[in-house]
Amino acid sequence: MTEVIPHWLTKQADLKPDQLALEYNGNEKLTFQELCQASQSMARRLANLGVVKGSHVALLSQNDVHMVILIHALSYLGAVAVLLNIRLSSDELQFQIDDAKVHLLVASDRFSEEMSEIDVTQKKMFSELQQTPEKKVALQEELVLSDPFTIIYTSGTTGFPKGVVHTYGNHWWSAIGSALNLGISAQDKWLAVLPLFHVSGLSILCKSVIYGMPVYLMETSDPEKVHQALMNENITMISVVTVMLQRLLEKLGNKSYPEQLRCVLLGGGPAPKPVLEQARKKEVPVFQSYGLTETSSQIVTLSPQDALRKIGSAGKPLVPAQLKIKAQSSQNVGEIYVKGPMVTKGYFNNPAADQKAFQAGWMKTGDLGYLDEEGFLYVVDRRNDLIISGGENIYPSEIESVITELTDVQEVGVTGKPDDKWGEVPVAFIVKDKQKRLDGEVVQAYVRERLASYKVPKQIYFVVQLPRNASNKLMRHKLREWL
Amino acid sequence: MTEVIPHWLTKQADLKPDQLALEYNGNEKLTFQELCQASQSMARRLANLGVVKGSHVALLSQNDVHMVILIHALSYLGAVAVLLNIRLSSDELQFQIDDAKVHLLVASDRFSEEMSEIDVTQKKMFSELQQTPEKKVALQEELVLSDPFTIIYTSGTTGFPKGVVHTYGNHWWSAIGSALNLGISAQDKWLAVLPLFHVSGLSILCKSVIYGMPVYLMETSDPEKVHQALMNENITMISVVTVMLQRLLEKLGNKSYPEQLRCVLLGGGPAPKPVLEQARKKEVPVFQSYGLTETSSQIVTLSPQDALRKIGSAGKPLVPAQLKIKAQSSQNVGEIYVKGPMVTKGYFNNPAADQKAFQAGWMKTGDLGYLDEEGFLYVVDRRNDLIISGGENIYPSEIESVITELTDVQEVGVTGKPDDKWGEVPVAFIVKDKQKRLDGEVVQAYVRERLASYKVPKQIYFVVQLPRNASNKLMRHKLREWL
Repeated sequence: MTEVIPHWLTKQADLKPDQLALEYNGNEKLTFQELCQASQSMARRLANLGVVKGSHVALLSQNDVHMVILIHALSYLGAVAVLLNIRLSSDELQFQIDDAKVHLLVASDRFSEEMSEIDVTQKKMFSELQQTPEKKVALQEELVLSDPFTIIYTSGTTGFPKGVVHTYGNHWWSAIGSALNLGISAQDKWLAVLPLFHVSGLSILCKSVIYGMPVYLMETSDPEKVHQALMNENITMISVVTVMLQRLLEKLGNKSYPEQLRCVLLGGGPAPKPVLEQARKKEVPVFQSYGLTETSSQIVTLSPQDALRKIGSAGKPLVPAQLKIKAQSSQNVGEIYVKGPMVTKGYFNNPAADQKAFQAGWMKTGDLGYLDEEGFLYVVDRRNDLIISGGENIYPSEIESVITELTDVQEVGVTGKPDDKWGEVPVAFIVKDKQKRLDGEVVQAYVRERLASYKVPKQIYFVVQLPRNASNKLMRHKLREWL
Repeated sequence: MTEVIPHWLTKQADLKPDQLALEYNGNEKLTFQELCQASQSMARRLANLGVVKGSHVALLSQNDVHMVILIHALSYLGAVAVLLNIRLSSDELQFQIDDAKVHLLVASDRFSEEMSEIDVTQKKMFSELQQTPEKKVALQEELVLSDPFTIIYTSGTTGFPKGVVHTYGNHWWSAIGSALNLGISAQDKWLAVLPLFHVSGLSILCKSVIYGMPVYLMETSDPEKVHQALMNENITMISVVTVMLQRLLEKLGNKSYPEQLRCVLLGGGPAPKPVLEQARKKEVPVFQSYGLTETSSQIVTLSPQDALRKIGSAGKPLVPAQLKIKAQSSQNVGEIYVKGPMVTKGYFNNPAADQKAFQAGWMKTGDLGYLDEEGFLYVVDRRNDLIISGGENIYPSEIESVITELTDVQEVGVTGKPDDKWGEVPVAFIVKDKQKRLDGEVVQAYVRERLASYKVPKQIYFVVQLPRNASNKLMRHKLREWL
């Protein structure tokens, strides 16, 4: 039985018309009424371009007020937002645009060059949309929770990225699960510095219209600016990844953040314990969490009452969520399975991926973890070999498959190397053809042409052979040991 | 697509095992872990009596810790709780028990006499259940939101009571709608003095296990004890009806309630304006609300930011809810229609009632109201209570509100009396201050100065008390019977 709710932005514009919805560019502001009007106006412009219920519209933008307006505008048409990572190469963008069957690509003006390389039915820059006249159409007054709202691509452990479909219900339940954990206060203001094209950033926008809460949107991820905002802008919550937390702790020095900062929600992979302990020492209220694109952001969070006692744990599953560990043997560590109404119902147009990921209502995360005797989750490894660099997920297999294209390469294994700035960076171990000369820089240049720059291995090691197990599978954890 | 969540009490026992769940009998306490264990133990006893998934088990009890445990125990079996009003006659009880197809009736020991008159397959007193051994059965680990949880009877506008079926989802969404309006704080403690067999009381229990919040359960509705609890027990929220609010304001005198009391949720029909203004003067944070058994408690509430500006209004529909007024003609007042996931999907085994109440996803409440220019709801009256005099609509609550302004009046109820000339004319029943002399003509003169002449009660009856139901709501149809 699918539930129907009134459109969440229209609702907040009705309940709290003059309440601040968005602060951006430092000092610009929109109330819920203004945001609603701007989004409805944009919806009518998009309608003029033929966007209708069910249309897939791709967005390519850094954090920007227009992106917020566009996302809400699409919801007024019942269209689906395909959120593109701005760091992708044009080949990668093209793959996602084709795979998601995108009708229209909309991009921030700063991406006009990337846009020119993309082949898609229709393209518009933000500035062009401002010129597009409005078309009189009926806008959605309700949201059907089982309807799709967004598609965000996530790299598969093998092969091509998959489009994670989030329904309105997924986002709703994610926001409610978080509220039941963190509470809701009329004073709340959430700082969004994580990209809106990632679910961690997008989920803040959804919380905003579900709670009626202002968002402080940052267009830059400059740690100094984030630090200043935390100091001066009455922020109560912020979502960060480890590398940002480290920078903030450095900036903080011996000072403290204002008392109203009540939650620093930490995601994007297991954090080093020394960082967490430093945060504790400086009384920064860090909440470790665990989540995936597929779980519409955090699904497991360490609650305030346990934060100190269970440092290093990702906590317990949120009120509407469930968790189990499928251990291979008698040992505790096993694959993390999750279940709950915030978990995606499936990938876009990809039954093979669905079949692999879902089992009797549970989703297999591919991540490894264990539960302690009180049921607290400790994530051991983010998908066996996932590299997380500056909050971005890097899958070794993707880089390996590109490098393997070089004829002089016999075998390649990629893993992450600890890095002070990014947490981790990718490095590659290559077995080359003995007859040939192959330069590391050639490999790097080859990858750079095909993948986002953060996926380019920072170092290339030439080795005689790669570590493989009895069934000849590459043991990437051995590569880590080699480093 | 029906959503599935982990069992809410088991979840809280996992997340907050040592958190207070229930305070009762003044100083007794249960943590969530203890409440979970007691409820699971009770579930196994009930299983021994043949209660299985889908069984209908009727409960007859005043507010009591055993009733709380029984309600949760039934959820562990997937059985449905039929909540009986303890003020019903045995004929009325028999009707509901038969109509709801009850397998087992469980009653508090103080109702042994009433029990003996009831014809039902199986009966047990609370004390007998304590003797029943546990049976090893698998308990529900999850709640399917579309599954029925409770049945509460509501008097039909005509004829027999109808059993309102509440699913787990109805209760969940009601609790979430309330949380999005009132916020959630770790300090919250809700005082439950309204009967648990009414949805207004029951909804507090559901909030408790959904938020992980303690409930202060009162077994008596003695205003003095409620007042003392508000003064001394760190209560932050309480649900009341008008007559209780009046008593509390009297007891309060010139004092104030402690600052942490942040919400006095007022339901059970439109409140007289003088009472609301007195509450405002004494800084009692009254939130007017509107709801029905069918809406799983409040569906419209006046938010803090509008409380003073819109005194007398029930507010706006909660975030997940919608509202419209179906006006008969050009005038503003019309029947209130509601929609939302907290609204019942239907009555038990009563397609005729369903057909009458539901229309294209909306529920017709049978209540009359209007929206002001900003969309705030003003509930005028039950449609049934409407007096039509010479073609004019007269709303009893309007007249009652004026009469309440007279200081010698303690309570007043207005209804229509058949009249040869006008069809109906208004008459008033008044409970006056025993110490004072109050003349009917004085009352009529007072009304005449303030309202249209056709609204002046043609007769004033002084009575010792007014007919009220178990949640202290005025039963105007009883006044009609008195005539």
